[in-house]
Amino acid sequence: MKKTQQPNLRIIPLGGQGEVGLNMKLLEYERKILIIDMGLGFPGENMPGIDCIIPNISYLKGKEKNILGVVLTHGHYDHIGAIPYIIPRIGSVPMYASLLTKGIILKRQEDFANQPKLDIEEVKDGSRIKLGPFQIEFFRQNHNIPDNLGLFIQTPVGNVLHTSDFKFDQSPVNELPTDFEKLRKLGQRGILLLMSESTGAEEEGHSLSEKTIFQNLDEIFKKVKGRIIAASFSSMINRIQQLIILSEKYNRKVAIEGYSMKTNVEIAQNLKKIKVQKGTFIKTKDISKFPDSKITVICTGAQGEGRAVFMRIANREHKFIHLKKEDTVIFSSSVVPGNERTVQILKDEFHRQGAKVFHYRMMDIHASGHAKQEELSRMIQIMKPKFFLPIYGYYSMLVKHAELAEEEGIRQENILVAGNGQVVKLTPQRISLEKEKVPSNYVMVDGLGIGDVGEVVLRDRQVLSQDGMFVIVALVDRQTGKVRGSPDIISRGFVYLRESKELLKETRKRVIAIVNRAAGSGGALNWSYVKDELRNKIGQFLFSKTKRRPMILPVVIEV
Amino acid sequence: MKKTQQPNLRIIPLGGQGEVGLNMKLLEYERKILIIDMGLGFPGENMPGIDCIIPNISYLKGKEKNILGVVLTHGHYDHIGAIPYIIPRIGSVPMYASLLTKGIILKRQEDFANQPKLDIEEVKDGSRIKLGPFQIEFFRQNHNIPDNLGLFIQTPVGNVLHTSDFKFDQSPVNELPTDFEKLRKLGQRGILLLMSESTGAEEEGHSLSEKTIFQNLDEIFKKVKGRIIAASFSSMINRIQQLIILSEKYNRKVAIEGYSMKTNVEIAQNLKKIKVQKGTFIKTKDISKFPDSKITVICTGAQGEGRAVFMRIANREHKFIHLKKEDTVIFSSSVVPGNERTVQILKDEFHRQGAKVFHYRMMDIHASGHAKQEELSRMIQIMKPKFFLPIYGYYSMLVKHAELAEEEGIRQENILVAGNGQVVKLTPQRISLEKEKVPSNYVMVDGLGIGDVGEVVLRDRQVLSQDGMFVIVALVDRQTGKVRGSPDIISRGFVYLRESKELLKETRKRVIAIVNRAAGSGGALNWSYVKDELRNKIGQFLFSKTKRRPMILPVVIEV
Repeated sequence: MKKTQQPNLRIIPLGGQGEVGLNMKLLEYERKILIIDMGLGFPGENMPGIDCIIPNISYLKGKEKNILGVVLTHGHYDHIGAIPYIIPRIGSVPMYASLLTKGIILKRQEDFANQPKLDIEEVKDGSRIKLGPFQIEFFRQNHNIPDNLGLFIQTPVGNVLHTSDFKFDQSPVNELPTDFEKLRKLGQRGILLLMSESTGAEEEGHSLSEKTIFQNLDEIFKKVKGRIIAASFSSMINRIQQLIILSEKYNRKVAIEGYSMKTNVEIAQNLKKIKVQKGTFIKTKDISKFPDSKITVICTGAQGEGRAVFMRIANREHKFIHLKKEDTVIFSSSVVPGNERTVQILKDEFHRQGAKVFHYRMMDIHASGHAKQEELSRMIQIMKPKFFLPIYGYYSMLVKHAELAEEEGIRQENILVAGNGQVVKLTPQRISLEKEKVPSNYVMVDGLGIGDVGEVVLRDRQVLSQDGMFVIVALVDRQTGKVRGSPDIISRGFVYLRESKELLKETRKRVIAIVNRAAGSGGALNWSYVKDELRNKIGQFLFSKTKRRPMILPVVIEV
Repeated sequence: MKKTQQPNLRIIPLGGQGEVGLNMKLLEYERKILIIDMGLGFPGENMPGIDCIIPNISYLKGKEKNILGVVLTHGHYDHIGAIPYIIPRIGSVPMYASLLTKGIILKRQEDFANQPKLDIEEVKDGSRIKLGPFQIEFFRQNHNIPDNLGLFIQTPVGNVLHTSDFKFDQSPVNELPTDFEKLRKLGQRGILLLMSESTGAEEEGHSLSEKTIFQNLDEIFKKVKGRIIAASFSSMINRIQQLIILSEKYNRKVAIEGYSMKTNVEIAQNLKKIKVQKGTFIKTKDISKFPDSKITVICTGAQGEGRAVFMRIANREHKFIHLKKEDTVIFSSSVVPGNERTVQILKDEFHRQGAKVFHYRMMDIHASGHAKQEELSRMIQIMKPKFFLPIYGYYSMLVKHAELAEEEGIRQENILVAGNGQVVKLTPQRISLEKEKVPSNYVMVDGLGIGDVGEVVLRDRQVLSQDGMFVIVALVDRQTGKVRGSPDIISRGFVYLRESKELLKETRKRVIAIVNRAAGSGGALNWSYVKDELRNKIGQFLFSKTKRRPMILPVVIEV
């Protein structure tokens, strides 16, 4: 039987399929490549010292000329943050982003040296662009940042709908309500494949409307007599807008604190994506000029980030904001998994100093900005896709989202859960995984280094962080083969040296004995053998005395 | 006005007031000291390499002979785990614990060398002991481990009730239901001070009955055809009992995996605190001899602990348990704050391999074992104490619990929130905080070292973990003052050395220049100046090239 190669679309997720963040997907048709988002990811606990992770773009190597363009859905770093790392490697390509997204991208470029000038075309709700075989229509989606755009992509195999991050909200703040009519019309044009975000797939029910959150916050503002100090993500523009509106309602001046918060507010304000009355904003150093009841501080650090404003206030290290018992502290964003303990400790510190603390567990003053199960199901009902590919989220979220799709009547064989680097093949008849896998291991960014920190360096950092290190420097007399003088020992993170003189003395004795014994055997010294002996024997000795295993680094120098 | 010193009771929390874990409280009356619990705490993220933390017992130094005894409420490590570290320091004192608690304590002693023999008297529900001015009656409290005892303590100032960890459960598994009648009778005898646990104080409603959890688990067991692999805490004896009962109900053999799990099950079984039919238990190596539908594995590692059984199964490193698509994996305990991301990654790994995964977010197959707000309020209603001291929990939980007590009608001035090391003074008329503070900073255990790792060592470990280290060894000729040969460089955790030859070459050049310049200035060399120069200049140079700041350790040796 003769098999003809049908035209097919390849969908290749380079990130975001097995983690929250790192979002980047490729759509490939007859070698032409469309890129959706270029986000960064957050380093895990097993990646000490790493600044962030970025998608692995090895697959694009040699295919740069085939890249049609990059479409950016919204201005969050997990969707745009990898641009300054990736663009210099693939060269200038046309980019498409909404007004605010573009503003945030361009502002961020200033933090990076020697960046090529970006070629970003502005798009908005209703814009259409044609890139090779792809025709893309942008439609607005509610989230917690304005100017978020979903994608309706006409491809030669059929229509693909990409939701971007979204929630359904009929009474949002700072945005128009969800336009279900528009969504239905998109659905009626026939959706071959729905790619829908999965962050909230394990959460039952419906996300809160921003209006509800607004009312909850209003309750707090109404009661509070002292200052209000509210922390959030700098990227949650709509939450910041709410806090500003409420401050204005209750005649409070607003001080914005924290570099990223200031930057984002400035961008949003310039682009008229945040509305602020004249005279509302004051400088932080001026807060003491107003009565406490007239002050709101909006700052960074709701995740307990070490150097952010919130932490500095809690630790009494902030120049102008000194906590008082009458202050009310609001954690106005949900906790990112992994930060729970740090946030708890921060919260406790505020409590200890007597401030009133509000957190989302106590009142619903947060909303994740992500659709929960009811909304995800509704999106599937509206789009009625033939095929379904859950995107954006931990693997367990993708699996749960796939189960929801099945409950909504999508046939099991038409649903695919794909991990990073897997190649999804889509024809009008079938969705399947190719055998081929594309490199997708994390690329770590550390300072100026992109991808140069690998397993070896990371493992060394982990070992160093556990029990520290122990360097032994021994000089050996070339003539006699014996150790000359007393070996130097440099140790950090192992024991408190001043209180370990006996241990060091005994160690030196053993070092001399080990080297001299090797020398006594006559002939040319096998230095690598001597070093191994030092590493093993001194390691065992130190372990027997301390039950710790510092990294032992012997240096033997002939003089 | 003459002020007579009234007899007063001093309550001194050495741990557990501002964290979950590390529970240890002192009751002191006219210098006589009663100790309640000796628990360990879990190291924070800022304590790399630390095994655990223990309460600071500096206050007891010189007062050893005044210690009347130690009362242990139940067999969880956060209540008994510090015994092997503390008892050798304060010497043998009478201890009081229930049968199972005693069994767990004695078994654990075997892991520690040179421990004094413990003098543990067994107590149970209804036992009474007299220790100096204190008369203690033990009463059983439901939790998730059998043999948990609350304390009714008659003191010269009045009756103190200490709840231990507890939940109210009218249909528990493996225990009798809560005896409200007995609690009411205790309350009717007049409670001057209630010390009640606060772990669940921020949770609304009522904790789940173990019976509900049992039914949820039964639903899973009923449906599942393949093997069941369930992870839990080894200390959650009652959860383990439930899994055994259900396995027996559905004719499954049970393999217990993981050292601590095996140990605890063995102790509990020997003391008849767990019931197992003959023939239920099999060795893990024999699981392949039975059909998959007849196998349950109960193992450690539900928190994503690196070396535990669950993780080894997920990573395909377990000798006998190789995951199959038909397996069902159950996370049957809630996630300890801080472990969320690790647990998520573990869960994803099981999903990726195609197993069916149940977690507490999807079904209520966990219960925290701790009273939530309704139960905490009810405890206050039953005891009707004059004074209230919330114990056990993060500071925010203590504050919330204090608010609950106020809602229950306790007068605000009769409620106290105390942190570790604060001294609570109790008279029949008044509860207050003394000005005096007792040392309560954490004592860290690392290998054989107890308390020897301090700020310096920890900070070094943190620095090392971020950007690694960089040792420079330069030999200087005594005659010429010039560097002899090429300086040695030993670096780990900084850059991948093999790919950084240029950087190292350039660094060596600079080292030679810096040392030679210093030598050129004539006179005796100021070595500490030379070392500072190396540290600063080489540090700056490496930062300019990499934007990383490894710890720079210069070694200059005259030869």
